[in-house]
Formats: sequence, structure tokens, C-alpha cells
Amino acid sequence: MSSYVKAAIKEISKFIEAAINLISDNEINSLVETLIEAYRSGRKVLIVGAGRSGLVGRAFAMRLMHLGFNVYVLGETITPRLDVGDVVIAISGSGRTRLVVTAAEVARSIGAKIIAVTSHPDSPLAKLADLVVRIPGRTKVATEEDYIVRQLLGMHEPLTPLGTLFENTALAVLDGVIVELMKRLGVSEEELKLRHANIE
Amino acid sequence: MSSYVKAAIKEISKFIEAAINLISDNEINSLVETLIEAYRSGRKVLIVGAGRSGLVGRAFAMRLMHLGFNVYVLGETITPRLDVGDVVIAISGSGRTRLVVTAAEVARSIGAKIIAVTSHPDSPLAKLADLVVRIPGRTKVATEEDYIVRQLLGMHEPLTPLGTLFENTALAVLDGVIVELMKRLGVSEEELKLRHANIE
Amino acid sequence: MSSYVKAAIKEISKFIEAAINLISDNEINSLVETLIEAYRSGRKVLIVGAGRSGLVGRAFAMRLMHLGFNVYVLGETITPRLDVGDVVIAISGSGRTRLVVTAAEVARSIGAKIIAVTSHPDSPLAKLADLVVRIPGRTKVATEEDYIVRQLLGMHEPLTPLGTLFENTALAVLDGVIVELMKRLGVSEEELKLRHANIE
Amino acid sequence: MSSYVKAAIKEISKFIEAAINLISDNEINSLVETLIEAYRSGRKVLIVGAGRSGLVGRAFAMRLMHLGFNVYVLGETITPRLDVGDVVIAISGSGRTRLVVTAAEVARSIGAKIIAVTSHPDSPLAKLADLVVRIPGRTKVATEEDYIVRQLLGMHEPLTPLGTLFENTALAVLDGVIVELMKRLGVSEEELKLRHANIE
Repeated sequence: MSSYVKAAIKEISKFIEAAINLISDNEINSLVETLIEAYRSGRKVLIVGAGRSGLVGRAFAMRLMHLGFNVYVLGETITPRLDVGDVVIAISGSGRTRLVVTAAEVARSIGAKIIAVTSHPDSPLAKLADLVVRIPGRTKVATEEDYIVRQLLGMHEPLTPLGTLFENTALAVLDGVIVELMKRLGVSEEELKLRHANIE
Repeated sequence: MSSYVKAAIKEISKFIEAAINLISDNEINSLVETLIEAYRSGRKVLIVGAGRSGLVGRAFAMRLMHLGFNVYVLGETITPRLDVGDVVIAISGSGRTRLVVTAAEVARSIGAKIIAVTSHPDSPLAKLADLVVRIPGRTKVATEEDYIVRQLLGMHEPLTPLGTLFENTALAVLDGVIVELMKRLGVSEEELKLRHANIE
Repeated sequence: MSSYVKAAIKEISKFIEAAINLISDNEINSLVETLIEAYRSGRKVLIVGAGRSGLVGRAFAMRLMHLGFNVYVLGETITPRLDVGDVVIAISGSGRTRLVVTAAEVARSIGAKIIAVTSHPDSPLAKLADLVVRIPGRTKVATEEDYIVRQLLGMHEPLTPLGTLFENTALAVLDGVIVELMKRLGVSEEELKLRHANIE
Repeated sequence: MSSYVKAAIKEISKFIEAAINLISDNEINSLVETLIEAYRSGRKVLIVGAGRSGLVGRAFAMRLMHLGFNVYVLGETITPRLDVGDVVIAISGSGRTRLVVTAAEVARSIGAKIIAVTSHPDSPLAKLADLVVRIPGRTKVATEEDYIVRQLLGMHEPLTPLGTLFENTALAVLDGVIVELMKRLGVSEEELKLRHANIE
């Protein structure tokens, strides 16, 4: 009776909970501080991602907009020029997504600050980043992380396919970053609501 | 020390876990069976949603594509005509998102089967749907659900703003539905990978 | 030998040329002045459209961004709340596209100024607009305009299907509006280039 | 008044008309035949483009869908894996758009057939393509083409900025290709209408 549905939701919720101890305070703090600096200086923040990681990135971008950030998404219509000192947040579980890595390379050559949100600190994306924010996930590339995932879940193979655990965890972690930004910037939920789209 | 980040991740993971007992077996089974029927008959599945709920819908659509479904997203370039018997999955926490409700009305008049994924079984979206799949969430509209949320979380007010809990939970639940579909349709993770975009 | 390709291009170019005498100086001037006012006051401009008309709208939005406008596209990630006095440009050849009309209705109730770009001044979209900018086109709804089109083209039936003539003409007319805005606002091509996306 | 609007529309229409003699019969025929082969074999066609060229590509993709093609757009949700023999149509006036060139490189390594729609037959994109379809345009890179443009227009500098002439001309030429495909495949406008989205 849909028992796989519940088992998979349990796997996802347990994995997100476990992430609390796996993510790095330093990395998250650096991300938060970089964002606060961009907020205060009015610098642009550009979100880059492909596939489901790209959708997680857009969900984060939407909340940054609600917070009052000058934020854009690569590939959308009104995304402007990036300048020296602007911030790029590139999301890729594997850190190997070709167009994401290429976009980050171009951004780096422009002088933007690159933040990689990835499970793989040794990946091409992580290597060119100024800051790597590691988020656990069983990604498409088999690695040590997969081992951690199996241990965490106490099973041989996760139920959820491909990047599912990374994507759900990245969404929750970045939503945690939003709460931190609200507190640090003193932005209330009411103020978020005031910037929320009213034609949809 | 980014303590809000961790508290918010905990809130999200606890909320998703609690959803396991709040979602309805019947509703989830009906969703799974409707999708299996669409899969077998080759009928189109159209995903409709706005804002962050729309992004959750796209993440679900991507996995349905990996599974071999004939799936489309409202508003994207190659979305074709809908016919009698096609399936529309409309996602809206509040069930009141105007353009989502309007799209569902048009779909209903065409003779499509409407599935509402929402926290509000009394909402306009739910009322016009053939099937309502309730997913708990603290949505923009204050309701009894909010009360459930506060009880669940053992606190006066959730940390995470606006539709955050609904969106994270909807993603996890729909990812659970994907696992169920994989098992029932006998589609392996390898086969998903074979349909996954290879230019990105 | 691809003779239809050339005949169709000829039909399109002749139709665009004929539009020069069919568009209204007053309507175009009002559009330009409304935009200049939005530019000077920093008010938001929201572009609304579906299908190929929506793509023409996005092409226009991109140039408005290059010009320095505070412009957004309905349905994209970072589109914010609309306020009283903001400007909505809704593009629909038939003026009957349901979700476009609904979005314009919501925008009107918010107190935004609605500009309809359409072939049909009697359409639901035109009727709720503060300003109608007529652009000739053979649209999906059979009308007097179709008659004009046939006369213009000196043939019984246009070669190009559905909204093709409207879409090509709307793109050219709105690109003409961009040139006018450049001259009136004193923005050079170099300045456009400075705002043009540099990661793509 | 608004004299620049009309002068710019005239420039665009004249430029599109002049393109009839500048485009190559052989190139257009090869494009049409490659598409007919993809149609008959059910092979996938993937449209790739950035910025306004990407929007022109989407407008073309939408009509290919109306014709019954198995067509996708890079970056959209349900875009699947590409296989050997699938067709990629990459649109870039300059032929140097970095992410478009990278995507074409990946597609080439997969064994897809690459068609470049560009003003620049010597560009990186054109060089890696199996077929180059030249479309005149004054692109962001100064070249011989610019000289042709100036001659065509009988003026020192075009009124319309950046890629405007390329984009309008590419839309008209690709719409001409649609008419040719309708005739060769025997698809009527009624049949296009039957596939056209009915929720929008």
C-alpha cells in the first residue's frame, strides 16, 4: 500500500536530519557572510545550476529576492552583466555538470566570487570556487560520499534515485540559510510577503 | 554560529518525517494509480504550479520524464494541446493561486483529470479537482493546518517562512511517489539514467 | 527548391513594412511615454504573454533591461510584487489568451497600468487595458484583420500559419520602440552592451 | 512623431527582405532535409541558444512541436538524453556564445548532428557544425557582415542595436522553413492548430 512512498520519505527526512551534523559551520558561515556583504553593498548574486539542482537554486533565488537581494538566475530573461565582486552560487551535486562548470569559469574570469554548493570538494566546480559549501548527497558519480550515505541510511542502497538526496538536502540547507539571513538582516516574514509576487 | 540554519533544517526534516503519518494512503495510492494508467496508455501528464510550488512540480516532472512518462510543464516551450483523459497535476499549498486555479479550470473544461496537490482540501483548486492529495504545510492562508504545524513542531511559530514547509514536504512526498512508480513499473535507476539529459 | 521559404520570408517582410502605416502614432507615442515615465520613476514594468507572443515579450524585456529599466517577466523566478502605478505590458494577438487576460485582471485590481499589445481592440484583454497598442496580424480568431491581411498580401490565404505575422511584426515594432527609447533617453548602444549578460 | 519607431521597423523589414537573396538555397535545403529525416525517423531535435537568439530558437521549437516533431529546448524541464544521430540546432549570431558552443561540443561528442544558425561561418560554433546556415546580421562582433549590412541599408550605422537584425531575420527565415516543412510533409494549418497548447 504505497509502502515505498513512506520508506522513501523517511529516507529523505533522515538524510536531511543527518546533514545537520555533516555540513560545516565554517562553510555555512562563510556563505551567510558573503551573502550579507552582497546585500549591504547591493552587489548582484547570480544563481547557476542545471536540472533539479537548478530548480533548487531557483527556489533559493526566489527567497533571496523576497529578502531584498539583487539576485538573478542564469538563463532567465532579465539576467544582466556580471561585474568584479559579484557573487555566483553554482549548485551541482557532482560538481561536474559541464555547462555549470563552464559558466563558473566565465564568471571567475570576470572577477566574480564563486561559491560551489556540491557534494564533491574535489570536483572541477569546487576546484575553481572561492568557497565550497559541501552538502551530503548520493550523486551520479560513485564516491566516498555514497559510502557515507549507505552508512547513514543503514542499508545497502538508498531507495531514492540519482541526485534525490542531494537535491532535497540542498533545498533544506539553503532554506536554513534563508532563516539565518532573516535573523541577521532583521527582515520579518511580513517583509518577505511584501516582496512576494502577487500575480501568479 | 549559524544556529538558525541548523534549527531550520531540523524543523524541515521533522516536518517531512511527521508528514509520513499525515498523508493519506488512499490519496497517494490514487495518485500512483492514475499515473500508472497514464503511463500505460501514453496519455499526457501536465504539471501546473507557480512560484516555489511550480519549481517542486518541475522537479517531479523531470523524474517522470526519466521514468518514460509523456510529461509536460505548463508555460514551457513545447507543451502541447491537452485532450480528454489527460492528467493535470496542479500544485499549490494554499490552493488559491489564481493562475493555477484558472489553468485547472480550463483543463477541466477540456475533460482532463485534475489532481490537486495542496494543504487545503476546501480551497478553490481542491474543489474543482477529481483527486486531492493533501500535503501538510503552513501556507500563506492561516488555517487549521497552521495549528497542526505548531503542534507538530512544539513551538508557537515555525522558523521557516511562508510556504517553505509545504514546498520541502511536497518535494519529498513526490520523490516518494517516484520510488513507488519505479517499483511498480519495474524501472531501474539505470533506466532513469538512460533518459537523463546528457547536455547540461 | 525551398521556394516556400523565400515566399514566406517575403510575406513576412512585406507585412512588417505594411505595419508602418497601420500602427497608430498616438498609440505608439503613449506606449513610449508610459515607458519613459516608468524609467524615470523607477517603477516596475512586467511583461506578460503566452506561447510565441510570450517569447516576443521576453525579447522586448531583455532590451528594456539593457536600457536600464526595472523590468520583469511573469512566470520567471525573481519576479516581485507589483504595486499601484507599475506598468504591465500584455501581449496577445487574439487578446483572448485566458491566462494572459487573468493576469491582466489581477494586475488591474492591484492598480497597475495595463498596456495591451494585440490585433484585436475589441478583445477581453484590450477592453480591460488602459492603453491598446494595435499591431496587425492574422490571429487565431477570424476577423476583419484577416481581411486586411489578405488585401495587404494580395492573396487569398497567407502562407505563414497561425500567429506568425503578428509575432514577427510585434517583434519588429517593439524593437522600433527600443530605438525610440534609446534616442529619447540618450542611451547609446555601448551602454546597452554594458548591461548585456556576459555569461551565456 | 516616434519617427525612430517607423525608421527602425523599415530597417528591419528591408533587412529581412534583403536576406531572401543572401541566404543560401543549399544551406536552407540541407536544413529542411535534415529536419524531414528527423521527422520521419522520430529522432529528437534539440534547440540550443542564449539570450534573444535563444528566444528565436524557442519560437521555432514551438512550431516544430505543432508540426509533430520530437523537439526539445536545452535548459527546459523535460529535455531528455540526446543520442547518436539526433539533431542539434544551435543559434548564435556571433557563433561565439560560450555556453552555446560548449553545449554543441558536448552534443558533437555524443554523436549528434550539429546545425549552426549564425552570421559567422568562421566562428567556433560554425567550425564544429555539420551544417552551417548563414543568416545575415549585424552581430556583436564587428566583421565583413557589418559592411554588408551598412551597404544594404545605405547608411553608415544601423538604427537597431546589437543583434536585432539577426534576431528578426532568423525568426522570419525559420518561419519560412516551417512553411516549407508544412508543404513537404503535407501538414495543414488545421493540424498545427490541433497540437497547439489549449491551456495558456
